[in-house]
Amino acid sequence: MINQSDIERRYLAIKEQAEKSGYHLNPDEDFAKELVHGILTNEERYGFAACPCRLCVGPREENLDIICPCDYRDQDITEFGVCYCALYVSKDVAAGITPVSYIPDRRAPPGKCDSGDPKQTEVPEDEKSSLLQEGRPLLYPVFRCRVCGYLCARTSPPETCPICGAASDRFEKYLQ
Amino acid sequence: MINQSDIERRYLAIKEQAEKSGYHLNPDEDFAKELVHGILTNEERYGFAACPCRLCVGPREENLDIICPCDYRDQDITEFGVCYCALYVSKDVAAGITPVSYIPDRRAPPGKCDSGDPKQTEVPEDEKSSLLQEGRPLLYPVFRCRVCGYLCARTSPPETCPICGAASDRFEKYLQ
Amino acid sequence: MINQSDIERRYLAIKEQAEKSGYHLNPDEDFAKELVHGILTNEERYGFAACPCRLCVGPREENLDIICPCDYRDQDITEFGVCYCALYVSKDVAAGITPVSYIPDRRAPPGKCDSGDPKQTEVPEDEKSSLLQEGRPLLYPVFRCRVCGYLCARTSPPETCPICGAASDRFEKYLQ
Repeated sequence: MINQSDIERRYLAIKEQAEKSGYHLNPDEDFAKELVHGILTNEERYGFAACPCRLCVGPREENLDIICPCDYRDQDITEFGVCYCALYVSKDVAAGITPVSYIPDRRAPPGKCDSGDPKQTEVPEDEKSSLLQEGRPLLYPVFRCRVCGYLCARTSPPETCPICGAASDRFEKYLQ
Repeated sequence: MINQSDIERRYLAIKEQAEKSGYHLNPDEDFAKELVHGILTNEERYGFAACPCRLCVGPREENLDIICPCDYRDQDITEFGVCYCALYVSKDVAAGITPVSYIPDRRAPPGKCDSGDPKQTEVPEDEKSSLLQEGRPLLYPVFRCRVCGYLCARTSPPETCPICGAASDRFEKYLQ
Repeated sequence: MINQSDIERRYLAIKEQAEKSGYHLNPDEDFAKELVHGILTNEERYGFAACPCRLCVGPREENLDIICPCDYRDQDITEFGVCYCALYVSKDVAAGITPVSYIPDRRAPPGKCDSGDPKQTEVPEDEKSSLLQEGRPLLYPVFRCRVCGYLCARTSPPETCPICGAASDRFEKYLQ
């Protein structure tokens, strides 16, 4: 049985981890805690913290991409200001400057092929091992924080550098 | 109007961010708070936290390199033990082992070409996209922390690994 | 003279740094503090925090790999659940799920050549500078956190992403 103090404890742990890395939770605390309740329910049910807003079928290995925080969070925050559940939001949404909006699910439906999202595209093993070959692009570009030199491989730079706190426009494309 | 409590609050936020990432503020607290006052003044005046010790002309996009912490901080700390303003200092300066010194400005004067600092050199777009070509050096070498594997692209390793706290001599050159 | 409050202070500093980066100290606090005592003793004796469970001969430059946390910690935690001293342990050992075991020393004895550990293999300078050459493998593969894009070069992914807290199975091989 999940009780209120389990939810509070997990909510605080998630919030602390988010803030230390430059992420923000939905400013509507009751809404956020409802989602945390859903995460805890999934953890009891499946044995892992599956996204509370998505259908989870199969074992952990087949659902790694939707364990919260999911593989789609950061790109959704960049493009829409919120993740699919709206548990995580952009700085502007957190500050109440931009309203929360509802967004499409970036994950391909089970059994369907995904439309070109590199996170879903299966890369053949021999290609993976030759990523450094001339002329072959990387799976994701590497961004570099011009302030502290932090490197990360993502669709676009993070909203806030998790190391030094610099804003996304302080990043440059370093490798692609 | 900027009041003392604005300065205190911002000073503490900057100090916390610095310490979490292995940086140090000037141990002269009054001096550091004067600089924070300057940062807040620039934020009111320009809309962004321009360096309080440099001339700021034009919009944010043209002054990204001197938003505090500036693009030059880390290299200045490595070479001189302080950043240009002396808001950020090395571990030895913070501990009072090395005195604070005054240092030249690494930023090129507006309209002047810079003398070979890669941060100022404009790289043509087609070269940027072929950084992985054989024989072509990277814009900055990549350093690797031998303790935790952290990677960063900088002129030299950080004084302290922001992930595991290892000292700069625990880093090795990983790519160049 | 090292007294109890020195040990307490250092123990707390090491614990805080560990937890912020996703590492765990041995849950047996008395045992862990004995090791911290050894680290402080070595710091007094040699001038640097050499591993308390290994023989330290020569200056800092020749013992960088065994300054605590040592270069071998992370690989030992991945393979054995503990570092050589058992000061640092895996999440499962920390939680009491897996017992602490004693493990072999990964470091080559002084004067002996190491058996293929890349950390010990001396790479000729001209090869180091051509790591990006086609067909030449990297010294360590680069892993990418699929959640936040964090990159690190290690034998295997970290147990916990130090940026976003994701588990090791959320990492993918990005470059090799």
